[in-house]
Amino acid sequence: MRRFLRRRDEADGGELSARERETFLLQMRESIEGRRGEANAMVHAAGLRTAYLELPPDGRHEFLGLNASELGLDRERLAELARAMLDADGDERRVAEEALRQALDAPWLRLLRLFNRLPDGTRFLLELRTDLLRLSAQDPALLPLERDLKRVLEAWFDTGFLELRRVTWDSPASLLERLAASEAVHTVVGWGDLKDRLDADRRFYACVHPHLPGDPLTFVEVALTRGIPDTIGAVLDQEAPTVDPTGADTAVFYSISNVEPGLRGVPFGHFVIRKAMEELLAELPQLRVFATISPIPGFRAWLESQDAAAYLDRQERRELDVHEFLARDWAEDERASSLLRKPLLRMCAAYLVDEATDAVLRFHLSNGARLERLSWLADRSPRGMAQSAGVMAHYVYDPGQVEANHEAFSGRGEIVASDSVKRLAREARQKRQRHAA
Amino acid sequence: MRRFLRRRDEADGGELSARERETFLLQMRESIEGRRGEANAMVHAAGLRTAYLELPPDGRHEFLGLNASELGLDRERLAELARAMLDADGDERRVAEEALRQALDAPWLRLLRLFNRLPDGTRFLLELRTDLLRLSAQDPALLPLERDLKRVLEAWFDTGFLELRRVTWDSPASLLERLAASEAVHTVVGWGDLKDRLDADRRFYACVHPHLPGDPLTFVEVALTRGIPDTIGAVLDQEAPTVDPTGADTAVFYSISNVEPGLRGVPFGHFVIRKAMEELLAELPQLRVFATISPIPGFRAWLESQDAAAYLDRQERRELDVHEFLARDWAEDERASSLLRKPLLRMCAAYLVDEATDAVLRFHLSNGARLERLSWLADRSPRGMAQSAGVMAHYVYDPGQVEANHEAFSGRGEIVASDSVKRLAREARQKRQRHAA
Amino acid sequence: MRRFLRRRDEADGGELSARERETFLLQMRESIEGRRGEANAMVHAAGLRTAYLELPPDGRHEFLGLNASELGLDRERLAELARAMLDADGDERRVAEEALRQALDAPWLRLLRLFNRLPDGTRFLLELRTDLLRLSAQDPALLPLERDLKRVLEAWFDTGFLELRRVTWDSPASLLERLAASEAVHTVVGWGDLKDRLDADRRFYACVHPHLPGDPLTFVEVALTRGIPDTIGAVLDQEAPTVDPTGADTAVFYSISNVEPGLRGVPFGHFVIRKAMEELLAELPQLRVFATISPIPGFRAWLESQDAAAYLDRQERRELDVHEFLARDWAEDERASSLLRKPLLRMCAAYLVDEATDAVLRFHLSNGARLERLSWLADRSPRGMAQSAGVMAHYVYDPGQVEANHEAFSGRGEIVASDSVKRLAREARQKRQRHAA
Amino acid sequence: MRRFLRRRDEADGGELSARERETFLLQMRESIEGRRGEANAMVHAAGLRTAYLELPPDGRHEFLGLNASELGLDRERLAELARAMLDADGDERRVAEEALRQALDAPWLRLLRLFNRLPDGTRFLLELRTDLLRLSAQDPALLPLERDLKRVLEAWFDTGFLELRRVTWDSPASLLERLAASEAVHTVVGWGDLKDRLDADRRFYACVHPHLPGDPLTFVEVALTRGIPDTIGAVLDQEAPTVDPTGADTAVFYSISNVEPGLRGVPFGHFVIRKAMEELLAELPQLRVFATISPIPGFRAWLESQDAAAYLDRQERRELDVHEFLARDWAEDERASSLLRKPLLRMCAAYLVDEATDAVLRFHLSNGARLERLSWLADRSPRGMAQSAGVMAHYVYDPGQVEANHEAFSGRGEIVASDSVKRLAREARQKRQRHAA
Repeated sequence: MRRFLRRRDEADGGELSARERETFLLQMRESIEGRRGEANAMVHAAGLRTAYLELPPDGRHEFLGLNASELGLDRERLAELARAMLDADGDERRVAEEALRQALDAPWLRLLRLFNRLPDGTRFLLELRTDLLRLSAQDPALLPLERDLKRVLEAWFDTGFLELRRVTWDSPASLLERLAASEAVHTVVGWGDLKDRLDADRRFYACVHPHLPGDPLTFVEVALTRGIPDTIGAVLDQEAPTVDPTGADTAVFYSISNVEPGLRGVPFGHFVIRKAMEELLAELPQLRVFATISPIPGFRAWLESQDAAAYLDRQERRELDVHEFLARDWAEDERASSLLRKPLLRMCAAYLVDEATDAVLRFHLSNGARLERLSWLADRSPRGMAQSAGVMAHYVYDPGQVEANHEAFSGRGEIVASDSVKRLAREARQKRQRHAA
Repeated sequence: MRRFLRRRDEADGGELSARERETFLLQMRESIEGRRGEANAMVHAAGLRTAYLELPPDGRHEFLGLNASELGLDRERLAELARAMLDADGDERRVAEEALRQALDAPWLRLLRLFNRLPDGTRFLLELRTDLLRLSAQDPALLPLERDLKRVLEAWFDTGFLELRRVTWDSPASLLERLAASEAVHTVVGWGDLKDRLDADRRFYACVHPHLPGDPLTFVEVALTRGIPDTIGAVLDQEAPTVDPTGADTAVFYSISNVEPGLRGVPFGHFVIRKAMEELLAELPQLRVFATISPIPGFRAWLESQDAAAYLDRQERRELDVHEFLARDWAEDERASSLLRKPLLRMCAAYLVDEATDAVLRFHLSNGARLERLSWLADRSPRGMAQSAGVMAHYVYDPGQVEANHEAFSGRGEIVASDSVKRLAREARQKRQRHAA
Repeated sequence: MRRFLRRRDEADGGELSARERETFLLQMRESIEGRRGEANAMVHAAGLRTAYLELPPDGRHEFLGLNASELGLDRERLAELARAMLDADGDERRVAEEALRQALDAPWLRLLRLFNRLPDGTRFLLELRTDLLRLSAQDPALLPLERDLKRVLEAWFDTGFLELRRVTWDSPASLLERLAASEAVHTVVGWGDLKDRLDADRRFYACVHPHLPGDPLTFVEVALTRGIPDTIGAVLDQEAPTVDPTGADTAVFYSISNVEPGLRGVPFGHFVIRKAMEELLAELPQLRVFATISPIPGFRAWLESQDAAAYLDRQERRELDVHEFLARDWAEDERASSLLRKPLLRMCAAYLVDEATDAVLRFHLSNGARLERLSWLADRSPRGMAQSAGVMAHYVYDPGQVEANHEAFSGRGEIVASDSVKRLAREARQKRQRHAA
Repeated sequence: MRRFLRRRDEADGGELSARERETFLLQMRESIEGRRGEANAMVHAAGLRTAYLELPPDGRHEFLGLNASELGLDRERLAELARAMLDADGDERRVAEEALRQALDAPWLRLLRLFNRLPDGTRFLLELRTDLLRLSAQDPALLPLERDLKRVLEAWFDTGFLELRRVTWDSPASLLERLAASEAVHTVVGWGDLKDRLDADRRFYACVHPHLPGDPLTFVEVALTRGIPDTIGAVLDQEAPTVDPTGADTAVFYSISNVEPGLRGVPFGHFVIRKAMEELLAELPQLRVFATISPIPGFRAWLESQDAAAYLDRQERRELDVHEFLARDWAEDERASSLLRKPLLRMCAAYLVDEATDAVLRFHLSNGARLERLSWLADRSPRGMAQSAGVMAHYVYDPGQVEANHEAFSGRGEIVASDSVKRLAREARQKRQRHAA
């Protein structure tokens, strides 16, 4: 269908004509009020969808604005009902609460549900939300609409309805192409790289809604290894020999990416990790360690903001100026990297444990993982160097500890980390205190 | 799983012990607050489910009451937020509305969502609602919980997610068994009858959610015929010769039944009829008429309440006493039935057109059908005689008229009927007026 | 398609007209010679098939006779090639052998292969063979054609291409109906009986060719029990409580039946038993015993031919006249059956072990089973009484012994039996010898 | 499984030890004689397979030689049976023929059938035949074994069992990879090229045996166009705009390749073309022309063998020396190619029509096609230039003419060609005759 849609030429001017606004408004009302029945309402909804898909960005913004301004809450009625509820008691109060709740469902919700009933309707709603996320960043009037759409999608994409499916080299090429394009952490370079990630000692799981089986939502990539690998390069190396999976003791989650932009903010990560662990244990019961090899995306930016000298001891201060070193191509310079190693790992531990702001850290800790270890020069990719100064973190999921860890972090705000990482962070703290003193 | 559940013996007393109440409450709170993480919350939810399934009816009532009383709305907070909303303006108002909306989502909703994430969780929620429908009829305190569960199920079972699947003699025996047991309109008498309803000149469509492919929600049975059959007996006759479907001009919807009691009040009928018509036209484009052969479930009861003589002309009044005749086995008595024919059809038209209370009539008219014709002695089954005095109604779905019909009925309250039915109703009206005069 | 075939009325005379014979012959030649190409040859083959299916039995016989007489071997050429082969040497001999082999493939084989290429062609060949089996019993001229068709089907239905599929209550009703109708050993009485045979403590495996997935060839029914049941009644009892399959230690093969008459004489039994054992062990590794509960179809007939007194001791001879007792309703007469018990079991052991002609015995022993035990009054069905005098045999498949047993029976003609059965047979032998003396 | 096979190191010497020969021979005999039953025979067959797969090429040759020499025909018995047949009469003769036919089935056939019953056994037989095809070319003693294996595979892979499946971008990546690697006519250059061949205006059909669904046997690639394209470059151009398939009037078969080397000589081409035409017409009934764009693989070699001057007129002879021109990079030299155009097309027509030896020509004509047209500089690929001098042929399949064409070519040896091609060939003939005169 999409193939035959003619996007209105931007050159014609993106804005809607008065006539178009009027038509859209009419169609929206017809759909929502449904006076001529469900079938007729769906015809109007279908017309609105086609029109929307043909609109250029500016027109889409206006279209959504029309929704937001004309199909929103009826505030007078809302105020009335709120007052009625405050006055009510007993059974009457229950009725008033229900009435208020219904009045807080904006009329646009009915339009969104109608869109969902069109063929391929759910896909359209996901595209709509992708637009809304972008546009509401500039135009807060769209926020309630965006939030309501999110709420609806959250209900429909509840993890209770999702499935984790293994992706292999026997999966449809179209699916593999889509997954490869969505790999946001470690770019897939060609079909050879992709095939390697689907080899006998790799696992690739996609999270899928049965209603959209060809549109994966999220995926996770796993390497089966003996011991936790120190560098992501070792994981991605296409020349490395294939390991017999039944001999592996460790499953390394080396990449988790979202595929569907329309579901941003709908949390699947926890589900995907839990289900993948279940699948892995069912298939390979000999696995002992579930670990990640993760970026530390905020480390370098934080580093830049610090007086690095404060984290060094006297000897180190003599030998290196951290910021100056980092500005160079230090990873290739053996002396530089050897001098940087200890101080940088120390600062990284401080950043993770004491700042506790790193998004990836917070994701894994809230899922019940423990920060286990830092690896030096573990990601030499341009992004790895630019964001994480080449350091990577390993989070370990210990099935027996997941609950306690989650409670420690989410309940008491404690950063769950191994002794060695804690020691590094303590060192950093002491050095800084001494320096401050 | 169910197989191994041991229902607590009713004889032990159905009520919960203080200790049980305490445990359940604890588990509910653990699940809802999720302090120890999602996985832990699900363990508690799973525990609650198992416990619930093992409880006898009284225990289940108490369990649900516990939910309703302990996990409901926080009214103080609600009042506070309602007042805040009434005072707020502009962006603040938007934030206040959202806060209020969230506060109107009772905590039990979180527990219901957790249940849905368990294996076979959706099925459990359907069972829960079946219980709630029964229990809330006596105990209104359960109503808000029942309504919230309905609301959640309505979102999940939105027709946008449903599929219409053709059922044939090649379908799983387990599915056929379940469908046959759910046939509420014309009882299926054995596998031979069922096989006959799946013959080459019959169509059987089930409405299914892809998440529960083995649990059909609703189904519709269709006979392919030449012309609209006058009696349901002709449709169900297993000895009748099979019609070549490509020669049929009429599709007769002779039964629509709900399978899933947990979805009572969630409307699928319109969807099923619309989709079935699409499927039929795609397969057999030569079809010209889509009609029903439907019961008139309220007719006989209404009849009993009427002064039947008022609907008769002088001649008729001389010859028959309607109520007395009806009390006999009149269908088998040729003279009686011949005398009753005209007056009864006249009264039936009056009942349908002027009373406009018949549930089946309202269902089809609101879907855009037209009341086309009444058939005499069309359903001689005990139920057909007891409810509809043997009369059946044919509603016609004319694709080109569906919208206008819907609007006429739903918008203006007009009973859309053929001229012949209207004439009958007019006759009845005139007779009554004359009688009253 | 079949639905629209009009069987020529038998009343019109079943025989072919001269014109029909001529047309058929022409079409056969066109098909076989293929002068106008494969597509044209298939058109003629399709024409022949339609004509054949419309013929009444007599016409079919003639049609097949035409095949047999006109499309058979070219004997002159055969003689020539045989002589050439006898004279040839070295490479020439090889060429001559190949030429002879090709000349031994009758032209009708090409027609059979063409039939197979028609849509649903394999099904037609199976129907053809069903006819040929019946007709060649009276008309030996059809034997070579029947044998060649068998040979072709044997290649296509080689067990290497077959699959064993589990049949459950979720299988298509049409499949279940067909299987139930084919149960030749213990008649299925209604859908309730069938459902019971698919219960949690039963297994039902069908042997299927992937090209004809809806047409099972053979099936085997298994009961999961604790210990070997003594009577078939205990197995078929619908009221018996369902056993938890994970607690069963024994798998009882209680019925093996062929579904497809067109494959008579093509042996699947061994394959089905071996595969079923594999499936069972994969699913329920705790199973310890694989046994049958089998009829002894030739026992009663053999019994009738014996001087029963010869198998009795003096005491027994005084108390009972075997033949006279058997003529009565002895199973219901406690005294009679108690008197018969020992002598009959003794004679049965003699029949099985010493005669070694029983078809079921030979089937299981050639598959590597051991005759383990006889059960008294184990099959009280009319057939069970008439054929086996109510006795049933248990053959045990012991995975570790299957090869040795097979070799003992197939290689050395030894009847592999348990000590207890052998002892019974020895007793019978001794009694007879003493009696003869 | 294959993954874990350790190929015996070639360096260890490829030849079998005496002990190995002895073991293999023993296992072969055990398998064939099956004294210890089918299961045991299969264990030996499995052992032989594993051993074979681990052998280096020399060892495999010896292994197969062992088969050929030890498991072949029993010639003494054969001679005896041939003589008996020559002497027999009537029914006895029939029995003798059958005995002779059976004796002409070498014992190795039983081993091949056992291999087929192993898991993945058919695949192994295909690998075996691939080896036999290579080895029998040097070692004629293997020919009877190769031929018998072919015969068995021909029966199993009869087109009656095959299916044509559409391959799309949604097909498994592993399948696409395999198909791309097997494209023998127009090499697939990367996944982009492959995706282009699966676009909306392309069709890709693979011929598959249901027993080996992941192992396609043959495939055909089709372009949907308006009119027959003149060059293969136009078909393969990834930049060309996608045509709306419902607007196409022509289906161009631009590549037919075999995937499975083990089935060399088993003819599928006719089946694939016929079925593809059926599929195309079912999907796109508006198609009017089914044509190919085909190489002329023998043209250039034939050209080299000719006195080209004989095909030229006086003017042409003055202007060009064909062989000298062809030796240059003439396709890029506008003058040279313009001078060559007419003479080369004329010679090409002569080559095709009068020589009638071209393999592609014979393939299509025997399938009922007509040689329609020649296209100049239609394939500029290195192979296209080297084999076909850049010329390509279009064969047209006209459903109404296929039978007559087949008969004309296969029956009467007539080259079915359009008037224009015939005219070209006549011109060539006349020029040569004049030149010879």
